[in-house]
Amino acid sequence: MSIAHTAATAKAASIQLAAVGTDQKNAALADIAAALAAAAEQIIAANKQDLAAAKKSMLAAPLLKRLKFDEGKLSGVCAGIESLIKLPDPVGQVISATELDTGLELYKVSCPIGVVGVVFESRPDALVQISTLCLKSGNAVLLKGGSEAVNTNRTLSRIIAEASEKAGMPHGWIQLLQTRQDVAEMLAQDEYIDLVIPRGSNEFVRYIMDNTSIPVLGHADGICHVYVDGDANLDMAVDIVVDSKCQYVAVCNAAETLLVDSRIAREFLPKVKAALDEKNVALRGCEKTAAIIAVKPATEEDWSTEYLDYILSIKVVAGLDEAIDHINRYGSGHTDAIVTANKNSAEQFMSLVDSGNVFHNCSTRFSDGFRYGLGAEVGISTNKIHARGPVGLEGLLIYKYKLRGTGQIVADYSGPKAKQFTHKEIRRTSGKREPGA
Amino acid sequence: MSIAHTAATAKAASIQLAAVGTDQKNAALADIAAALAAAAEQIIAANKQDLAAAKKSMLAAPLLKRLKFDEGKLSGVCAGIESLIKLPDPVGQVISATELDTGLELYKVSCPIGVVGVVFESRPDALVQISTLCLKSGNAVLLKGGSEAVNTNRTLSRIIAEASEKAGMPHGWIQLLQTRQDVAEMLAQDEYIDLVIPRGSNEFVRYIMDNTSIPVLGHADGICHVYVDGDANLDMAVDIVVDSKCQYVAVCNAAETLLVDSRIAREFLPKVKAALDEKNVALRGCEKTAAIIAVKPATEEDWSTEYLDYILSIKVVAGLDEAIDHINRYGSGHTDAIVTANKNSAEQFMSLVDSGNVFHNCSTRFSDGFRYGLGAEVGISTNKIHARGPVGLEGLLIYKYKLRGTGQIVADYSGPKAKQFTHKEIRRTSGKREPGA
Repeated sequence: MSIAHTAATAKAASIQLAAVGTDQKNAALADIAAALAAAAEQIIAANKQDLAAAKKSMLAAPLLKRLKFDEGKLSGVCAGIESLIKLPDPVGQVISATELDTGLELYKVSCPIGVVGVVFESRPDALVQISTLCLKSGNAVLLKGGSEAVNTNRTLSRIIAEASEKAGMPHGWIQLLQTRQDVAEMLAQDEYIDLVIPRGSNEFVRYIMDNTSIPVLGHADGICHVYVDGDANLDMAVDIVVDSKCQYVAVCNAAETLLVDSRIAREFLPKVKAALDEKNVALRGCEKTAAIIAVKPATEEDWSTEYLDYILSIKVVAGLDEAIDHINRYGSGHTDAIVTANKNSAEQFMSLVDSGNVFHNCSTRFSDGFRYGLGAEVGISTNKIHARGPVGLEGLLIYKYKLRGTGQIVADYSGPKAKQFTHKEIRRTSGKREPGA
Repeated sequence: MSIAHTAATAKAASIQLAAVGTDQKNAALADIAAALAAAAEQIIAANKQDLAAAKKSMLAAPLLKRLKFDEGKLSGVCAGIESLIKLPDPVGQVISATELDTGLELYKVSCPIGVVGVVFESRPDALVQISTLCLKSGNAVLLKGGSEAVNTNRTLSRIIAEASEKAGMPHGWIQLLQTRQDVAEMLAQDEYIDLVIPRGSNEFVRYIMDNTSIPVLGHADGICHVYVDGDANLDMAVDIVVDSKCQYVAVCNAAETLLVDSRIAREFLPKVKAALDEKNVALRGCEKTAAIIAVKPATEEDWSTEYLDYILSIKVVAGLDEAIDHINRYGSGHTDAIVTANKNSAEQFMSLVDSGNVFHNCSTRFSDGFRYGLGAEVGISTNKIHARGPVGLEGLLIYKYKLRGTGQIVADYSGPKAKQFTHKEIRRTSGKREPGA
């Protein structure tokens, strides 16, 4: 089957899936969880094949860990499905309702985007998470996982497809792509695919973004900053810098650059260096920093480098304005924090820093769908349209306008004897569902 | 000045503009309206130059009409600015507010997208409308109008820039591009420009969409359908078909294809033909249609043609399912209507037709920002992400997450002694503004 045909099948399935009711989708999700649990042995056996091959090809230890899919991971994804079932159906929510005239009512109603293409590396649990999020939100999904997880992914996607289709979901709503060439072809299917979500390394995400005209939801870089203002509580600032840098270095919301107000640089830099030395963080600093503490000199390139490692670049700035300018110039629009006791400075920072997440007196590491309480996370986006920051289920949704009339025509609302529109908000007492649906 | 530099200037201005308060923006809008009114003579003189040149180059009469900018058009755009001032500020609205833990509060707050590139044909009033919509929503804007309106557009944009900068808006928030080459270069400035809005012919919009990696808000085609179901009131159906086709043929929400349920084709087709004949609509029909009324045979190409003229293609379908399939296959996701007295059929149609606007028992011509009561219209979108259908000011907005803490770090919320998140909704009694802002 060609990828164009695969995508067309997914499109047809997405039309049907958009109209499936909440109970039926939840029943299918429950059946998926049960089927996965029942197939534990089979899944783990497939994963062992992948692990054996990966070890043979000398895959690095952290990647092996991500590749592993054992009983623990399985109960994790099943628990995830159970919480997903409990979430309200995001489809069919009335966003607004307006009477245009008597008997002419306009409803703006949430609906699925359609077909989502997801490309992810290594972790097979991502396959289960993203496909069940798509099902809950009524989207068809084309999936491509890392080649090192091919057996695990095939097994998981087959079980999900079988269990859900048996529960009445349309054939073809979930399909697994096999090769890198398949991905390249998928990126050309803008006729059928409405959104691509890449999950993986910077270069990988950038490759996707540069090679498709389909909208991409995601982030390439996470160059996050902590700015320690002259009015900061310096002990609090040390804690926040250490946490932002070190709590988990390999992730996109870890800090890469520390900006320090020149007013407190002499006092703060030695304090923060002592704490970062304990965590073995390598420091690279501007000239002003180097005049105060021992650091490797930072180059221009450092300001736009995402280390994802125990490395931090440090720059002394003249104050709030320079900090904001630096972040807007070198940052990636992901997450940036200010530490200050001055409320006005904090508000100015959060207003002028053009990032999806702007924080006051807390760690950049809070920038995460689970910590935000979103219920589910589709990904983190540095886009300026549609969805920004940690994206929950709403990122997989759009809306349509439903206009319910009783024979109205526009000719009656134009010309010298034009009828007037009422444009009255329709107040709904019983929840957020449509009356007609 | 290179276009890259123009765009960079706009980006810098957009950062400042995002933080400008409501009163100041409204004052600038009032100053723009006053300045335009005061410069009436100058604007009309510039427009007369354009009109003279256009007549010399034999521009068609409808285009000349669109190009004309007289006292009437001027008071129209000034009245538009006055209503825009009265709209609530769309920036800084709290979309949601969550306590993550005591003293750690997350606000999801609306903010401008940043820099918008708008390319439009002919009508100089569009320049005033779109630039003031951008100002109200805190976005910087790069504009390129039709070359035939060059003098009018230069005069209008200079007056808007001068009046607004005098009122404190950041320099460079509005800039006019001069040539087609400028547009081509603008489409490459994805580093600085966040959204492109093309307004013009299909080919023009498609050219823009195919030549930029910047997100595009708009629609190329408007292939709208009316489906007359077997359970329709046939008199109502005739009125709706005639209005959808003829009320204004040159627009994207006019119907191009009529689908007729075979159950009522014999009765309905002669009725609707009589009414369409009165309006001199040329009919092209499928074989089944041709067996009932006199029509030119429709070709496969007709089903995907936007005539924008007194031409209608007609197809007899086996029923609701075939109608839905036809629309999802040949339609452009713009606006599609069903006429039926059967509520279930109507709901199924509106649920399964994958278009931004799905209508029951009313004309497709209602699909419009003014008729929807949006207050302002940025454009009509057939996108599947961000904004769909008639788009009001909200299409120029995104959001950012502001997290206000008191020293929290993620290390305290992980590991065996992890603190728990509270994830409590913060209820706001006094309007929808942030407490801190």
